[in-house]
Amino acid sequence: MASMSTVFPKPTSFISQPLTKSHKSDSVTTSISFPSNSKTRSLRTISVRAGLIEPDGGKLVDLVVPEPRRREKKHEAADLPRVRLTAIDLQWMHVLSEGWASPLRGFMRESEFLQTLHFNLLNLDDGSVVNMSVPIVLAIDDQQKALIGESKRVSLVDSDDNPIAILNDIEIYKHPKEERIARTWGTTAPGLPYVEEAITNAGDWLIGGDLEVLEPVKYNDGLDRFRLSPFELRKELEKRGADAVFAFQLRNPVHNGHALLMTDTRRRLLEMGYKNPILLLHPLGGFTKADDVPLSWRMKQHEKVLEDGVLDPETTVVSIFPSPMLYAGPTEVQWHAKARINAGANFYIVGRDPAGMGHPVEKRDLYDADHGKKVLSMAPGLERLNILPFRVAAYDKTQGKMAFFDPSRAQDFLFISGTKMRALAKNRENPPDGFMCPGGWKVLVDYYDSLTLTGNTKLPEKIPV
Amino acid sequence: MASMSTVFPKPTSFISQPLTKSHKSDSVTTSISFPSNSKTRSLRTISVRAGLIEPDGGKLVDLVVPEPRRREKKHEAADLPRVRLTAIDLQWMHVLSEGWASPLRGFMRESEFLQTLHFNLLNLDDGSVVNMSVPIVLAIDDQQKALIGESKRVSLVDSDDNPIAILNDIEIYKHPKEERIARTWGTTAPGLPYVEEAITNAGDWLIGGDLEVLEPVKYNDGLDRFRLSPFELRKELEKRGADAVFAFQLRNPVHNGHALLMTDTRRRLLEMGYKNPILLLHPLGGFTKADDVPLSWRMKQHEKVLEDGVLDPETTVVSIFPSPMLYAGPTEVQWHAKARINAGANFYIVGRDPAGMGHPVEKRDLYDADHGKKVLSMAPGLERLNILPFRVAAYDKTQGKMAFFDPSRAQDFLFISGTKMRALAKNRENPPDGFMCPGGWKVLVDYYDSLTLTGNTKLPEKIPV
Repeated sequence: MASMSTVFPKPTSFISQPLTKSHKSDSVTTSISFPSNSKTRSLRTISVRAGLIEPDGGKLVDLVVPEPRRREKKHEAADLPRVRLTAIDLQWMHVLSEGWASPLRGFMRESEFLQTLHFNLLNLDDGSVVNMSVPIVLAIDDQQKALIGESKRVSLVDSDDNPIAILNDIEIYKHPKEERIARTWGTTAPGLPYVEEAITNAGDWLIGGDLEVLEPVKYNDGLDRFRLSPFELRKELEKRGADAVFAFQLRNPVHNGHALLMTDTRRRLLEMGYKNPILLLHPLGGFTKADDVPLSWRMKQHEKVLEDGVLDPETTVVSIFPSPMLYAGPTEVQWHAKARINAGANFYIVGRDPAGMGHPVEKRDLYDADHGKKVLSMAPGLERLNILPFRVAAYDKTQGKMAFFDPSRAQDFLFISGTKMRALAKNRENPPDGFMCPGGWKVLVDYYDSLTLTGNTKLPEKIPV
Repeated sequence: MASMSTVFPKPTSFISQPLTKSHKSDSVTTSISFPSNSKTRSLRTISVRAGLIEPDGGKLVDLVVPEPRRREKKHEAADLPRVRLTAIDLQWMHVLSEGWASPLRGFMRESEFLQTLHFNLLNLDDGSVVNMSVPIVLAIDDQQKALIGESKRVSLVDSDDNPIAILNDIEIYKHPKEERIARTWGTTAPGLPYVEEAITNAGDWLIGGDLEVLEPVKYNDGLDRFRLSPFELRKELEKRGADAVFAFQLRNPVHNGHALLMTDTRRRLLEMGYKNPILLLHPLGGFTKADDVPLSWRMKQHEKVLEDGVLDPETTVVSIFPSPMLYAGPTEVQWHAKARINAGANFYIVGRDPAGMGHPVEKRDLYDADHGKKVLSMAPGLERLNILPFRVAAYDKTQGKMAFFDPSRAQDFLFISGTKMRALAKNRENPPDGFMCPGGWKVLVDYYDSLTLTGNTKLPEKIPV
C-alpha cells in the first residue's frame, strides 16, 4: 500500500526571492487535433507542450518577504496602523502570498474590484487579460478607517494582534455589499454561507494595496505539509516530468466514481499523445459551510483512498488548495480553474453544478447544473486551459461498481449524491459495495460518530436519506 | 432660427440588402498624443481617422428582409407557431433589426446570454470580443413553449396578432430571472422599473434565434422621421464629412449645462486636431420610467433648444435611439456606448452616475456615481471608443449662466439636479435665468400642465423642490 507521504514530497523551503522568467521551462508547442464531442464535430486543437503552462501574467507572484529582510519589515510593521484579519481574510492573504491569484499582488483596489465584478477579468498593461472572477478584498469599518487616517501603509495583524503583513500604497473605497453579493452570486437571498460569514457583518469600506507578507503562512494544524504553494507544485510536477497536468478540485470525500473519472481522464490524455499526464488532486482547504466534511477528515479519507490503491500514487499529486469556498457556482468555478493554471495545470475537470449548492430560500438548486461548464468554457483569460467536462458516473447495479452512466440502460444505475452519501454515513449505513473503498468509508462514519460523541446538536444522529 | 428639420435629413429609404465591407470607407489612422488628466500623467493616444469607426464585428447587421422577398416571408410566417411581443420586446426587435447590437443577429441564445451576464462581452469566431452588457432576450411562458413544440422557427406577432418577424433556428432555455436581475442590476430589490415592466411577470423560458424582420419598424407616432438607423446615421455623418463623432446619450430635457458641455467637447476635439467633429445628440426613445419626461415632449424641448441657437445645427445630428432604458448604471452605460459605435461614434461623453437612479428601497443612489465612467473605461470590447468624462457644469450665480464648476469658489455655484428641474417645472416656477432657453423651459411647463389637465394623479401639482 502506498502511504500518502509517498505521493508528494515534503515541502521544500519557501521561496524567498521573487521569481523571474528564467525559472520557467522553455515551452515548445506542437498541436494535435481530435474530434470534439460537440454536435458540429468541429476540430478542437489541443496543445501538447514541453514544460508547464505559464502562470497568468507570465510570472508567478510571490509576496513573502525574503528572509534577510523580514526583521526590518517586522520593525516597520510594528509602527503602522493595524487592521485585524478574520480567518477568511487570512486564507485570502495566504492565497495572494503564494501567487494563486497571479498577477494580483495584494487585496484588490477599486479598479480591480470593478473589473472582477463586471467582467470577471483583469486588464494587464500589455493589453492582455487574465481571468479573475471572485473579489479578493479586505473590509474595514468606519473606526478602522479613521484610525488609518492619511497613512499610506497599514500592518495586517492576526487574532493575537501580531503583525503578519504590510499593505502598501493603500486605497480605501466603499464596500458596495449588496452589489458585490448580487454580481458574484447572482442572488441576494439570505443564507449564502460565505456571505453570512464574511460579508454581511463586515465593514463598509474596502482597503486594497500591495502585500508584503512577513512569514510564509502556516496553520499548525498538522496539515501544513499538504499545503504546497504553486511554486512547490510546479517544482514537483516538473520533477515528475509531467507533460500534462489535470486538476481535480474537490471539497467532498472521494468515491469510486471520482476515481473512475480521474483514471479515465488519464487514459484519454495518453490517447491524445501525452506521455506522462499527472493528476493534481486538489481538495479545497479554506472556509466551507457547516455541513461539509471538515478538511482534516477529508484528508484522512483521501489518504485511505490512496492506500487502498484506488488512485495511482505515481501519477497523482495530492495537495491542499488554500482558498475559502464561496459556493458561487459559475462565477467561482472560474477562480478554481484559474488558480490551478498558476499551479501548473493545463487541463481542468469540471463536473455538474461546480461550486453549486441548494438555493438558500427556494426549493431548487441555486445554479443551472450546466451553466458552470458552459461559463467556464467561454471565460475570458482561460482560453489556454483545456476544459474536460465531467462524465457522469453512477453505481452500476449489474456490475456492482461505479461506472459511466449509460442512458440506454438507465434502470441499471443508482445515483448517490453527496447529500445522500453524507446521510448514509451519518446513519452508519453502508453504501452499495464498490461505491467507496471500505477504509475511506470508515473515515466518514468515524467523522459523524465524533460529532455525536461531542454532542454536536446541529447534525442529527439519524436523518432521512 | 434653425428648425429641427434642417438638423438632419429626411430618412432615406431603409436598406434592403445586407451591408458588405465595401460600404465602409477605408480608414487611415494617424495618432496624436495629449496628456490625460490622470494622476500619473501618462500619455494617452487618440486615433484621428479618416472614415467612421468600424461597427462591432466589422459589418453592420441588417435583419430587415429585402423588399423582393417580403411577400414570400410573410406567407411563411403565417404558418408558424406564434409568439406575441410586448412593447419592450418590439423595441428590442427594432434595436436588433437595425444593427445597434451588431454583430448580434437576433434574440440571444443561451451562450450569448451567459457571456453577457457574466462577462459583458461576446466572443467572436475570429477570437476577438465585442462588448455586450445587457441581455437582449425574449421570454415565453410554459403554454407558448408547449405550442412551439418541436418547431425550429416561430413567427413574432404584434399586439394585433400580425406577424412582424420570423425567429429561425430557435433555442429555448430556462429564464433564470433572479440571476439575470442580480447580475444586470447588482440588486434584486423590488421596484426596479424595467424589471417590474419586463421581467417579473415574464415567462419562465427564453427563446433565442436568428431574426428576419418583415418590415422596417415604425411607430406611427409622428416621431419616426427622427429614428435614423445606424446605417442612415453613418450615411449622414459621412455626408457631413465628420472626422470625429461624439455621442451624447440623454433621457432628460437639455439645459444649458449640457449645451456648454457639448460645445466645449467640440472645442477640445478641434484642439486635438480634428477638423470636423460632429455631435450625435441621441435621446433614448424606448421604455422609460413613469416620472421621466416622455419622448414626445423631450423631442419638442430639444427642437426649441436648437431653434434658440443653443447648439449649432451645422455640427449637430439629432436622432432617436430606439432602445428601452434599463436604469442599470455601469452595466447599461456600456450598452449605450457600444450601440453608438455601431452608429459611427468614436467619442462618448459619460456623465456622473450614467443610467443611474435612486435605490428602489434604500435611501441612497443605486450606484456609486463614479462607477459608470470607471467601468466604461475598462470595459472589454470598448477599447476603440474614446471615453470623454463629463465635466461638472453648474449655475454660476456671479455670471448668471451655466459654467464649469470651479471648486475654488464653490459658493458661487448652484446645482440644479434633474429632479429639482422637474419639480420647478411642475410647480410652474422659473429656474434662474440662463439655466435653460425660455422656449425649452416652456415645453416642460406645458408638459406638467398637460398632466394636471388630464387629471393624472400620480404627479402632484405642487411638490417641494
